[in-house]
Amino acid sequence: MQFTSAIVENAVDALSGFPGIGRRTALRLVMHLMNRPEAEVVRLADAVLKLKTELQLCSICGNVSDSGLCTVCANPMRNQKQICVVEDFSDQMAIEATSQYGGVYHVLGGLISPMDGVGPEELNISTLISRAAQEGTDEIIMAFSATVEGDTTMFYLARKLRDMPVKITCISRGISVGGEIEYADEITLGRSLANRTEYKV
Amino acid sequence: MQFTSAIVENAVDALSGFPGIGRRTALRLVMHLMNRPEAEVVRLADAVLKLKTELQLCSICGNVSDSGLCTVCANPMRNQKQICVVEDFSDQMAIEATSQYGGVYHVLGGLISPMDGVGPEELNISTLISRAAQEGTDEIIMAFSATVEGDTTMFYLARKLRDMPVKITCISRGISVGGEIEYADEITLGRSLANRTEYKV
Repeated sequence: MQFTSAIVENAVDALSGFPGIGRRTALRLVMHLMNRPEAEVVRLADAVLKLKTELQLCSICGNVSDSGLCTVCANPMRNQKQICVVEDFSDQMAIEATSQYGGVYHVLGGLISPMDGVGPEELNISTLISRAAQEGTDEIIMAFSATVEGDTTMFYLARKLRDMPVKITCISRGISVGGEIEYADEITLGRSLANRTEYKV
Repeated sequence: MQFTSAIVENAVDALSGFPGIGRRTALRLVMHLMNRPEAEVVRLADAVLKLKTELQLCSICGNVSDSGLCTVCANPMRNQKQICVVEDFSDQMAIEATSQYGGVYHVLGGLISPMDGVGPEELNISTLISRAAQEGTDEIIMAFSATVEGDTTMFYLARKLRDMPVKITCISRGISVGGEIEYADEITLGRSLANRTEYKV
């Protein structure tokens, strides 16, 4: 691309650094911004900057927060005895969106992945151990993606926590609701058979 | 989406204002930014801001520029007698990318579109008229998209310019290079038949 303006080129360069956004899409975004009111562009630049300058992590659970304590941990209506461990805040939001969970969370900030050089010490695990050891904690729910990294992290945490007086559970895996057996992959189907539960009427 | 941080929420709101970017994608972009070094995020915010605060339009052709004169108009190697009229700077870049054009440009900043309330007075047309009237200008090439708006603008400009001693041309339309007749739409095929050119060997 040959630009007549370095300002436009810099903006295209910066925006095409996003995952999934190439230079053509970045150019389209730049043209969109050029046509927006200045106040809106200032708001965007400001919102993006604050992600690095003002965003904090909750001192209890490690989730993103504005004040050092996230809205879930600060909420006295939540059951502090039940802790759901998740990879990152987008997984926390996905669980929150189900409206099925009334406990609190613990955000690891990633999963154990030797391939990517992420070991247990890179993750927010030590505070989880102390939370689990605290009197009053009943249950640790592990809610990780069904990947090698999720399984590894689950195995590691379960071994770390097994001598503590807390119940350790993990979310169930199997055929998606609405999913058809015919189209399920072999591993999922095999596991859901192995982990069958008693059906009571 | 229920956010535990207003800072994250504001950034998602701002990024989902882009065309083609929904809240889920915006969340993914925000997570990407959170993991980047602060300097990179500052560079992005700065590049975006400058689009509104520092970007200028070339005083000759209306293209985007850093200094009031674009790199094409400032280049003494370009043929100033040939002016290619385009809708916006992305079309100018597309033509420049062909490496087939050595003249200068004129950027209208849009096309005439009564449906969108864009009339000739909203566009950078009056300066084009004076450029066409200048001694030394040989040819005005109209290079617009093959849409109703492009055709309307072409018709309007041709009428405005027809009494001036300049040659008025437009880019050819027809079957794309590599395109097969079988799959060409009827209108394109009909036009390319009507506008057939003599084939010399």
